[in-house]
Amino acid sequence: MSKRHDFVRPDFDRARRKGVPEVILAEGKTVAHALRVTQIFLEQNGRAILSRVSPELEARLRNDLGDDVELEWYASARAAVLYREGVEPPAVGGRVGILTAGTSDIPAAEEAAMLCREMGCEVYSGFDMGVAGLHRLFGPLRQMLDEHQVDVLIIAAGMDGALPSVVSGLSDVPVIGLPTPVGYGLGGEGIAALYSMLQTCAPGMAVVNIGNGIGAGAMAGLIANRAAKARKGSG
Amino acid sequence: MSKRHDFVRPDFDRARRKGVPEVILAEGKTVAHALRVTQIFLEQNGRAILSRVSPELEARLRNDLGDDVELEWYASARAAVLYREGVEPPAVGGRVGILTAGTSDIPAAEEAAMLCREMGCEVYSGFDMGVAGLHRLFGPLRQMLDEHQVDVLIIAAGMDGALPSVVSGLSDVPVIGLPTPVGYGLGGEGIAALYSMLQTCAPGMAVVNIGNGIGAGAMAGLIANRAAKARKGSG
Amino acid sequence: MSKRHDFVRPDFDRARRKGVPEVILAEGKTVAHALRVTQIFLEQNGRAILSRVSPELEARLRNDLGDDVELEWYASARAAVLYREGVEPPAVGGRVGILTAGTSDIPAAEEAAMLCREMGCEVYSGFDMGVAGLHRLFGPLRQMLDEHQVDVLIIAAGMDGALPSVVSGLSDVPVIGLPTPVGYGLGGEGIAALYSMLQTCAPGMAVVNIGNGIGAGAMAGLIANRAAKARKGSG
Amino acid sequence: MSKRHDFVRPDFDRARRKGVPEVILAEGKTVAHALRVTQIFLEQNGRAILSRVSPELEARLRNDLGDDVELEWYASARAAVLYREGVEPPAVGGRVGILTAGTSDIPAAEEAAMLCREMGCEVYSGFDMGVAGLHRLFGPLRQMLDEHQVDVLIIAAGMDGALPSVVSGLSDVPVIGLPTPVGYGLGGEGIAALYSMLQTCAPGMAVVNIGNGIGAGAMAGLIANRAAKARKGSG
Amino acid sequence: MSKRHDFVRPDFDRARRKGVPEVILAEGKTVAHALRVTQIFLEQNGRAILSRVSPELEARLRNDLGDDVELEWYASARAAVLYREGVEPPAVGGRVGILTAGTSDIPAAEEAAMLCREMGCEVYSGFDMGVAGLHRLFGPLRQMLDEHQVDVLIIAAGMDGALPSVVSGLSDVPVIGLPTPVGYGLGGEGIAALYSMLQTCAPGMAVVNIGNGIGAGAMAGLIANRAAKARKGSG
Amino acid sequence: MSKRHDFVRPDFDRARRKGVPEVILAEGKTVAHALRVTQIFLEQNGRAILSRVSPELEARLRNDLGDDVELEWYASARAAVLYREGVEPPAVGGRVGILTAGTSDIPAAEEAAMLCREMGCEVYSGFDMGVAGLHRLFGPLRQMLDEHQVDVLIIAAGMDGALPSVVSGLSDVPVIGLPTPVGYGLGGEGIAALYSMLQTCAPGMAVVNIGNGIGAGAMAGLIANRAAKARKGSG
Amino acid sequence: MSKRHDFVRPDFDRARRKGVPEVILAEGKTVAHALRVTQIFLEQNGRAILSRVSPELEARLRNDLGDDVELEWYASARAAVLYREGVEPPAVGGRVGILTAGTSDIPAAEEAAMLCREMGCEVYSGFDMGVAGLHRLFGPLRQMLDEHQVDVLIIAAGMDGALPSVVSGLSDVPVIGLPTPVGYGLGGEGIAALYSMLQTCAPGMAVVNIGNGIGAGAMAGLIANRAAKARKGSG
Amino acid sequence: MSKRHDFVRPDFDRARRKGVPEVILAEGKTVAHALRVTQIFLEQNGRAILSRVSPELEARLRNDLGDDVELEWYASARAAVLYREGVEPPAVGGRVGILTAGTSDIPAAEEAAMLCREMGCEVYSGFDMGVAGLHRLFGPLRQMLDEHQVDVLIIAAGMDGALPSVVSGLSDVPVIGLPTPVGYGLGGEGIAALYSMLQTCAPGMAVVNIGNGIGAGAMAGLIANRAAKARKGSG
Repeated sequence: MSKRHDFVRPDFDRARRKGVPEVILAEGKTVAHALRVTQIFLEQNGRAILSRVSPELEARLRNDLGDDVELEWYASARAAVLYREGVEPPAVGGRVGILTAGTSDIPAAEEAAMLCREMGCEVYSGFDMGVAGLHRLFGPLRQMLDEHQVDVLIIAAGMDGALPSVVSGLSDVPVIGLPTPVGYGLGGEGIAALYSMLQTCAPGMAVVNIGNGIGAGAMAGLIANRAAKARKGSG
Repeated sequence: MSKRHDFVRPDFDRARRKGVPEVILAEGKTVAHALRVTQIFLEQNGRAILSRVSPELEARLRNDLGDDVELEWYASARAAVLYREGVEPPAVGGRVGILTAGTSDIPAAEEAAMLCREMGCEVYSGFDMGVAGLHRLFGPLRQMLDEHQVDVLIIAAGMDGALPSVVSGLSDVPVIGLPTPVGYGLGGEGIAALYSMLQTCAPGMAVVNIGNGIGAGAMAGLIANRAAKARKGSG
Repeated sequence: MSKRHDFVRPDFDRARRKGVPEVILAEGKTVAHALRVTQIFLEQNGRAILSRVSPELEARLRNDLGDDVELEWYASARAAVLYREGVEPPAVGGRVGILTAGTSDIPAAEEAAMLCREMGCEVYSGFDMGVAGLHRLFGPLRQMLDEHQVDVLIIAAGMDGALPSVVSGLSDVPVIGLPTPVGYGLGGEGIAALYSMLQTCAPGMAVVNIGNGIGAGAMAGLIANRAAKARKGSG
Repeated sequence: MSKRHDFVRPDFDRARRKGVPEVILAEGKTVAHALRVTQIFLEQNGRAILSRVSPELEARLRNDLGDDVELEWYASARAAVLYREGVEPPAVGGRVGILTAGTSDIPAAEEAAMLCREMGCEVYSGFDMGVAGLHRLFGPLRQMLDEHQVDVLIIAAGMDGALPSVVSGLSDVPVIGLPTPVGYGLGGEGIAALYSMLQTCAPGMAVVNIGNGIGAGAMAGLIANRAAKARKGSG
Repeated sequence: MSKRHDFVRPDFDRARRKGVPEVILAEGKTVAHALRVTQIFLEQNGRAILSRVSPELEARLRNDLGDDVELEWYASARAAVLYREGVEPPAVGGRVGILTAGTSDIPAAEEAAMLCREMGCEVYSGFDMGVAGLHRLFGPLRQMLDEHQVDVLIIAAGMDGALPSVVSGLSDVPVIGLPTPVGYGLGGEGIAALYSMLQTCAPGMAVVNIGNGIGAGAMAGLIANRAAKARKGSG
Repeated sequence: MSKRHDFVRPDFDRARRKGVPEVILAEGKTVAHALRVTQIFLEQNGRAILSRVSPELEARLRNDLGDDVELEWYASARAAVLYREGVEPPAVGGRVGILTAGTSDIPAAEEAAMLCREMGCEVYSGFDMGVAGLHRLFGPLRQMLDEHQVDVLIIAAGMDGALPSVVSGLSDVPVIGLPTPVGYGLGGEGIAALYSMLQTCAPGMAVVNIGNGIGAGAMAGLIANRAAKARKGSG
Repeated sequence: MSKRHDFVRPDFDRARRKGVPEVILAEGKTVAHALRVTQIFLEQNGRAILSRVSPELEARLRNDLGDDVELEWYASARAAVLYREGVEPPAVGGRVGILTAGTSDIPAAEEAAMLCREMGCEVYSGFDMGVAGLHRLFGPLRQMLDEHQVDVLIIAAGMDGALPSVVSGLSDVPVIGLPTPVGYGLGGEGIAALYSMLQTCAPGMAVVNIGNGIGAGAMAGLIANRAAKARKGSG
Repeated sequence: MSKRHDFVRPDFDRARRKGVPEVILAEGKTVAHALRVTQIFLEQNGRAILSRVSPELEARLRNDLGDDVELEWYASARAAVLYREGVEPPAVGGRVGILTAGTSDIPAAEEAAMLCREMGCEVYSGFDMGVAGLHRLFGPLRQMLDEHQVDVLIIAAGMDGALPSVVSGLSDVPVIGLPTPVGYGLGGEGIAALYSMLQTCAPGMAVVNIGNGIGAGAMAGLIANRAAKARKGSG
């Protein structure tokens, strides 16, 4: 077991098979290992997507990958998307709306937004809409539903986790509750938010685990793109 | 230890000392025992308050206590208030507003309302205001705050427990979150509601334990009556 | 608070506003109360949907509502749908696939199926596909994906909750994990199933609370109908 | 989503709308971000309140804000209040008593005291009154109740959380239990304290989450100021 | 395995070896089985001690065991002690004090008292001393400590579990905290009481599990009898 | 609240009132604060006892307190006892036996031993007796019980927490279970050990919280000294 | 979904494919349904194995299945094995030892024993060996290991769950810990037993879930039969 | 207690008595202490096995033990095996298969593999077989079962923990579920994986605690070697 030169088996084919591209979780990998997997993906698919990128890895991604690689950096989420020259992002056309209850919920929301974009969706977002001042919510929500006609909503919230239930009660599209690891004391670290979303009184919502922006993005992207393909007559 | 004729030591003096009358928790007592404690309170104080009354005890309270005892029955809460003839309820003048998220939250809310009334408060209430249809909330809430000028709000909610946070964000009076044992699966039996209230983003709320209508009522009554006494120049 | 003749405030308008019809949760209501709410819905909307129906209420629904009311009975879920004569079920055209890991998961799955049908979806289902004998899974799953071209999958599982992750890894449509209250000892009553689904390695899945067939059905119905409307050019 | 110049939306209006000023939670913000929000508040309202201030931020607050800004520093709580020259603190007149069980509970208590003062209350406090030596409690408590006539009590306790129940049994004013993250092993980090307060036998107490001094202060300030305004004839 | 005529292996020798007699836990045994084990103990040791006795078993114990067997019945605890004629209870002389916070804690306290008596201790008890009215505590406690000079205290409490910490802070003898399964909502069924006792600020207390009156009695009996034997010069 | 020159209120009198000397918990105090409290105790009582001492504080205790102060250092427990010249440790004569299951349990055991010694007890100890090799247990245990005739046993164990139950089944003295924060995964950090001790099948054991060596020592010291005083005719 | 005539899909082939026969879990099935599945197994395989059999189903199994079906009844486990005339039980020759800590652990142990027998193992068992009186353990254990030379041990224990660790420390065969749902208060219902087994200090043990006698039996049967086949030269 | 020169009591005899060699857990020991215990084992048994080795200790093991000591280093597990010259590893012949769901599960798997090898087993392994892409599983699994004819399987998985159930359903050898501390949010750190394995629908699996590679290896080694000895006619 001590020689494992080839135990890395990236799932290059996932985007085609699942409709969701593989995301390289940088957390828990050495910088060298993460870089190498990134290069393999760039060679194989022309694109590499990384989440939870450390500052050290960020620097290496910016400097070490050559001039023909373009980096898109998501600062709050600490996520990176890299494209080899000439490779085009997809454009499927699903429409995803993303709202956060507070500013601390933005990293998870941005992770979801990043993945939705890489799945070819249009993303509309609004921040800091929490229930402590509901008057800030109604305008942006109606705009998303009526003007942008989003196919699905992701609502990111920590603490009391009340916003997704409120939004779900006001919307006619499927809602994905994205609890964030925000909070303290009993029910902290997103536990209260997750519990509250699981107990929602407003039907039409499902949830992902705490801080799982990638999971929320994948689910939303699949929902929205299914509708988009149908709009184009190919669904 | 087998002879305990006199181990019952009711706290007749609590109403005077604490400002909150003692409530006889009938649950867990035999019907005979509960009846006897009721009679002692009627003799001593002219009033007895009982919560969690079984149908069998209810029948005995209605029939066995003599013609000079008047019963007020709170059906949802299964609570009873009994007065000996000639004894008057107090009238302190605190103003308490009580809202529930759903119809299942009414028993806990009514228990709180009963105790507030017995502490001499005026009680204003509204039911089924949950976040699954927020449009039902705004009217009754504004009426309580602006017209009735309540000193404190009790918000009873199970399931997602989102309503108290929403209300607290819209109000300028202290809010008491009263989680109710409503819900199922993970976070059920009121756990999610309690957690969510403890994590509220809206400052100005404190909570009692799940289903503790008596505790919510006592806290609200003390708050409201303190303001009422000050209004009368005696606080 | 003791007189509450009119505290029932059914949300007749939910189907139009949310795209999800209101379901009367019979559990926790008296038979008389449930019957009355049923009649109000039949009068107002021509349709009433009930979940968690007791045998006693079932008998009353069958006998007391008059000849012009037709009952559809879902035995495993103990759910009922009633139509006034001349009222037609909707037909939107979303396509929902539902699989269960074991036979004990059928009640939750059927509750979801019932709601999807009442939202106008076509429902395809298969039971007892659990991971203890995976060979039983592949055929029915491929048929759902390739032949019926479902827009979304609901996977109901208790115990180890492993099936939804397995299916999500094999599918390119959004998957809703529906944990069921099946299991014993540590992680019993569906806790292990829910935890396992929240930790899924296969992106493209979101979950509802344990036993929440209604919630899973509502989410699936919204997803599928959005695609269906787009197929018809109205989404 | 990568450009978010204006996602900071401070709630300047909260003090007027809610009666509770907004507190800037410095924890989790960069020093630069916290400084900028502080400046915005100073410009807009003439006052900024910060909690959980790091030593680095403390130094910047002391040095970088100009001579016309005065800093009040709460060392135990690591909280700061800043006033622009000429701006006066409010004086509403609510009377709040604060007691702690041990010395480790002082930071949470001081956070609460700070907010009460900024809401215009008079604050009376006493430390290290725990149940391991009850004889230390009675004098300071009677002085608060009888001499200072406080409108409300905040009792901060970790470990066994027994003090709030003891005090509530001896008082006729509303009590706010403030559990602190003090303790170890099973029930540590304030869990036992919170549980014990939620289970109090002494009616007339409500609680906030573990370590939530701001929440306890906001609740107490609203209660006390309501009584104070009534004393002045304006409640 | 289907024939197990002799799998019952009572530990007749425990009283001698451990200093604690074996107690037959009737709960979970059939009436016939419990009766038979009782008879075996009566024959072997001249004494049988049973806890958690059902009404049906109580009747059989009163009627079926012959005239030469005397029954002592502990009604609150539903415990029974039976002696064959001529057998004398032991008299070792340990002195045990037992206090309860409320009346609901009496069954557990009485179970402990019963076992202490059967270990030959003198037992002094007082009920309903809870922290909601501390003034009731001081007299009985001082009498136990100063007049009866108890060697050890058992303090039974459910709900907030605050009494044992208060008593331990006032006493110079070892204290055994006996949490009782009293309470509701979060921390209910004695969880909060146990947690609070484990977190006590007052050194000199150890605890047993919730409702374990037998365990508390055994521990107290061993402590008190060790001192008693030393007083007699035999320890 | 910002000036608190005198909020330190050490309980100098505890040793006399409770029979247990106050222990200064250094953890969570600054080195300066801990040193000052140490000096106050040395001046007032001639002795100071500190637990959870950091290396930095240890150095200061060794160097800064003057030549007339003698330090006894407990390396595993990181505890310190300091005596002013001429002050004599007490000698009451209680006999305490202490066993550990593994070597990781020694710090908690040594903390308990230190306090017992400072309460004037004789302490007998043995380490690494765990149930993975029971043959190592029997000799040392019999020696403690028969030769040293200990009045009480403290059994420290983490992981499975099985040793205290095994020992309690073999002993006729009271046993104090001292769970230690040793273990990993589910039930780690001493949770499994504490649970297992609370569920012991062997009557005559009570427990303290995880890692609470001071609490175990205080309880054991009180038990043993009560017997010792009785042996001397003064109990 | 309302017609499901053929959703029962028993896994007749499991015994051959897995080496473990399928066990019909009667709990949660109607008597009629369980009977029908039993008959299908008898027809198909000549044998049917049922666990958790209700008294009503037991009566039907005894009376309704015809004269050519023989029933073996396991009273403690409430399990049944039925054979059609002429069908022989297997005889593979694995050797399994089963011990219980108390008499309450016998049902789970017997369930395991039953399945091992039906897998063709020889089973040796001993009851009531708990750690409260270890002297009862050594003899039967040595006999199992040295005389019967068991290939594997199942140790069933509730409460403190200490026995499996003790036995594993004394044995050189693999040990399966079978926690049983025995216990009360904190860590009750087998939680403490499971936690303690998971934390065992004695390597060479693995566990199944609480009360899962079938799972323990299947694991033990596979282990023992693998050795038995090797002894016969066919492994 | 302050002098403990000889409290280290390594169990040199365990390999003979238990069939499992003692593993030195380096975590929690000082480098000096770990080195000394290593030397004692090398002198006594000619072999030393260490787990959870820090980089600092690794360097010392490589440099300080002399030329006649050979080191085998397991990089992922950070485990070390050292042999004195001339000492031969055992060769019993048990056959163990080890699979992991993801790459993060490799450290725990390698720890198990190391111990199995040191018990004299042949080990076959495969990585990254998770349920998110089941097609990668079937080939390696069939090869292990049919070609290598393993006696037992260890399946290491974190996150959803679904792989062990899937594998157990496809295998006829005993399976040991090894949950790993991989995952986040609710059910993170391996909790969901452990719960899911305890709830497996596929009989023939038992589990060890989270991350307990040593425990899984010991159990597997005992199972496989028992079969191997029987194959050689010595079991």
